[in-house]
Amino acid sequence: MTATSEQAAASDQEMIRIFDTTLRDGEQSPGASLNTSEKLEIARQLELLNVDIIEAGFPITSPDDFEAVRAVAGMIKSCTVAGLARCVEADIVRAAEAVREAAKPRVHVFCATSAIHRQYKLKRAEEEILKLSVEGVKLAKGFVDDVEFSPEDASRTELPFLSEVVQATIEAGATTVNIPDTVGYSTPDHFRRIIEHLFATVKDIDKAIISVHCHNDLGLAVANSLTAVQAGARQIECTINGLGERAGNASLEEVVMAVHTRHDVFNCRTRINTMRIYPISRLVSSLTGIPVQRNKAIVGENAFAHEAGVHQHGMLAHRETYEIMKPQDLGIPSSRLVLGKHSGRHALRNRLGQLGYDLDDARLDAIFEQFKTLADRKKEVFDEDLEAIVGQVLEEAENARTWELASLQTIGGTGVVPTATVRLKNLRSGDEVTDAATGDGPIDAAASCVCRLTGVDATLRQYDLRAVTAGRDAQGEVHLELEVSGRTYRGRGRSTDIIEASVLAFIRAINRVIAAKSQ
Amino acid sequence: MTATSEQAAASDQEMIRIFDTTLRDGEQSPGASLNTSEKLEIARQLELLNVDIIEAGFPITSPDDFEAVRAVAGMIKSCTVAGLARCVEADIVRAAEAVREAAKPRVHVFCATSAIHRQYKLKRAEEEILKLSVEGVKLAKGFVDDVEFSPEDASRTELPFLSEVVQATIEAGATTVNIPDTVGYSTPDHFRRIIEHLFATVKDIDKAIISVHCHNDLGLAVANSLTAVQAGARQIECTINGLGERAGNASLEEVVMAVHTRHDVFNCRTRINTMRIYPISRLVSSLTGIPVQRNKAIVGENAFAHEAGVHQHGMLAHRETYEIMKPQDLGIPSSRLVLGKHSGRHALRNRLGQLGYDLDDARLDAIFEQFKTLADRKKEVFDEDLEAIVGQVLEEAENARTWELASLQTIGGTGVVPTATVRLKNLRSGDEVTDAATGDGPIDAAASCVCRLTGVDATLRQYDLRAVTAGRDAQGEVHLELEVSGRTYRGRGRSTDIIEASVLAFIRAINRVIAAKSQ
Repeated sequence: MTATSEQAAASDQEMIRIFDTTLRDGEQSPGASLNTSEKLEIARQLELLNVDIIEAGFPITSPDDFEAVRAVAGMIKSCTVAGLARCVEADIVRAAEAVREAAKPRVHVFCATSAIHRQYKLKRAEEEILKLSVEGVKLAKGFVDDVEFSPEDASRTELPFLSEVVQATIEAGATTVNIPDTVGYSTPDHFRRIIEHLFATVKDIDKAIISVHCHNDLGLAVANSLTAVQAGARQIECTINGLGERAGNASLEEVVMAVHTRHDVFNCRTRINTMRIYPISRLVSSLTGIPVQRNKAIVGENAFAHEAGVHQHGMLAHRETYEIMKPQDLGIPSSRLVLGKHSGRHALRNRLGQLGYDLDDARLDAIFEQFKTLADRKKEVFDEDLEAIVGQVLEEAENARTWELASLQTIGGTGVVPTATVRLKNLRSGDEVTDAATGDGPIDAAASCVCRLTGVDATLRQYDLRAVTAGRDAQGEVHLELEVSGRTYRGRGRSTDIIEASVLAFIRAINRVIAAKSQ
Repeated sequence: MTATSEQAAASDQEMIRIFDTTLRDGEQSPGASLNTSEKLEIARQLELLNVDIIEAGFPITSPDDFEAVRAVAGMIKSCTVAGLARCVEADIVRAAEAVREAAKPRVHVFCATSAIHRQYKLKRAEEEILKLSVEGVKLAKGFVDDVEFSPEDASRTELPFLSEVVQATIEAGATTVNIPDTVGYSTPDHFRRIIEHLFATVKDIDKAIISVHCHNDLGLAVANSLTAVQAGARQIECTINGLGERAGNASLEEVVMAVHTRHDVFNCRTRINTMRIYPISRLVSSLTGIPVQRNKAIVGENAFAHEAGVHQHGMLAHRETYEIMKPQDLGIPSSRLVLGKHSGRHALRNRLGQLGYDLDDARLDAIFEQFKTLADRKKEVFDEDLEAIVGQVLEEAENARTWELASLQTIGGTGVVPTATVRLKNLRSGDEVTDAATGDGPIDAAASCVCRLTGVDATLRQYDLRAVTAGRDAQGEVHLELEVSGRTYRGRGRSTDIIEASVLAFIRAINRVIAAKSQ
């Protein structure tokens, strides 16, 4: 070994691979479903963030999932793109097909190994599970070199059997073996013992990268992931904003900033460009409609705010008395004013580029048009306003649109019956229809009127509205979910008038209902 | 020692004291300020939750803070009530006075000990810090037996000096010594070493309870707290929903459920009545206006939701394949329908009692009146609706009200100029004033009109609206913050009409501005 290759090996040993599963496990968060355009934008930002692996989806689950993984694989150049599959031939074939065009394709197969999963879910004995796992890895290996295997519910699996499965799948060709704490049951000590046990008992452990995938049911996902690193794991699976099944996965931003801030403790590094952490957190929140709570670590609105007088005094005296990270290292802008009504298409494209968006001309046109409309209503257009516009344009891109709002009038107040008059245009027939309805308030009245005009009877399940920026001329962004015949449909709308924003979101959700019915 | 007292000692050793600081550190969250009525309701729920210690505030900081601590101390019977103080005579006297009426009073004094705080904030040498700390504890001890001392920024303090301070303050009479990770800089291994060091080097460590107070800047507050318990700590300081400065404190619900769920690992217990965890989480969220994110562990909306088909299949086969806690153990209701328009005052009082509220007749009358108004508009009144009403009544209780909404009319839509006509009643003079204004939307128009009528020029800083329950007749609850002359004022409003809810919230914030100016 030459000095250079030794150095390379040493530096590689300290490198923690960041495997982002926002598009797979994150998208499994109830209410977080994303369309392909939205997934592509997130993938593009993940590439700028410089994650090592993007898990783009679970291709067998639906044609949309397959298509999204294929599209991400075709676009991303610098990251590995992974597709998930059970140890089932159809799954693996489909996943391999979806990632085929990737610059660095990976197939990620999993099989549950814990007693409770063997007995109740798979109804198979240990030998069968072992055989399934090995065959799954071998099959995947026929399509790609880079194969990851996950023994699902590893943290509740008997240690000797877990070691046996890990050894067998490495022998079968797995280049990464991931140890999931599927139900978020583990604690740092417990998880460390599992990883240490594997390093002590699995003969060929050095032939694969050991990975961890922790869920946050007890609030310990980040700590469990970091402890595993101290025990030898070199890949962490995580998501932006900690999205994921139930209480979510380890949050990428927390894992990465803990490793960066406490280099003295962990003695390792990641390739993450931390300047992209805040922008992608906002993008994911905007596209999924799942707000980040104010007191969320790293990316919450309060993460760098100091309220108590004693803290403010300390901060003024010396920043580090109360601050261990610099907000600017995370890409949190100190000022967000960007554009006004005189800004042109070029300035818009430039600013979107700085925000990490790389949009084709058709999209840019659509965004520019909405930007000009907004700039006429609102003196100062902020980054957040642009993000809201981009989010809406991406959402519309794949919505088969049937109805469009032609005009809206509302009357409301105390002592009057809230009434809305709505005119909708049918984009298929070109017809316009108009009607009026009453309700508990103007928004309810307008929603009733839209139901009446479109013939869709929907129940409102979820409604969130936030001001995109500060100020009385701020845009309101509405995220809502409708239930129709037991299925849920999302819609998003934004406007400086929140009634209009709500009606736009309602109509978009109705368009999704109609599109689903016509499939 | 008799067998019984030995048993008592053994069981006591395993008991972790839960010290809730929602009303002190939690209330320091930007945007979370609470009035005394709201603090009393939270304190009442903390007592039902069965926390060991309630830190009710920092009495020296304002007359309101003092009054709130005094009121909590006078009401709470089963928990210790603590007031915070710097090691300054005026602070300690004020804190002791505030908790004097408590059944179990505690004074909590703190002094920063880390080099960076000594040098930049306090500008004092080690000996002076030591002297200040000891004198602070002794002074507090003159007022109460139960004295807690915290060396602020302990996790960045040189270990020998930290040991010296801990020993000296125990000698001076501190019955609890709390080790804060003030800036959220620690990691589980690092924090464990600190606690182990203290147990190894502090001669009288057994004469005090060792406590921990962890912040979540790196997402490790819960893990650090639990690791400290494994090293010998027997009190955890935490908050509901993890509120607190910046990224907040260790979240009470996560700490408690980790200890309960993984009794096999931690071998200790708390006195917490877990059935009260979900109700108090909702109460705190509603009163502070800080939503809990969907993927928050334990209390988030998605914490027990299963989206992926593979998970749903497993859940149907056997619940424990994907669920390590039962939602019903946390008091998460399976059905929330409670009352309708025919429900009487007795049924309302009963249901509020089940939700943990114990309200006097005047409050109950105010709530009943609003309940009847709501029940006329809305077929089914849910627990969440009642909580929103209680929240509003508690907020109004202490707002010196000047203006009240007499009537409101709004016109909005596309192609019309949004216009609002507002009539306000001045509750001091009895006069009514009426005017109209335009805006970007009906809400903006109404806000402009209120500014015009009241002569207060306010900037909107924050605006959040959520549907309280599902359904198109759901109430909207608005939380907003106004800025006037550099200060922030909160307002909350609710109605089935979100324009009305917004205007009510706006008027309440304006009333706070006027009250502050007249002080």
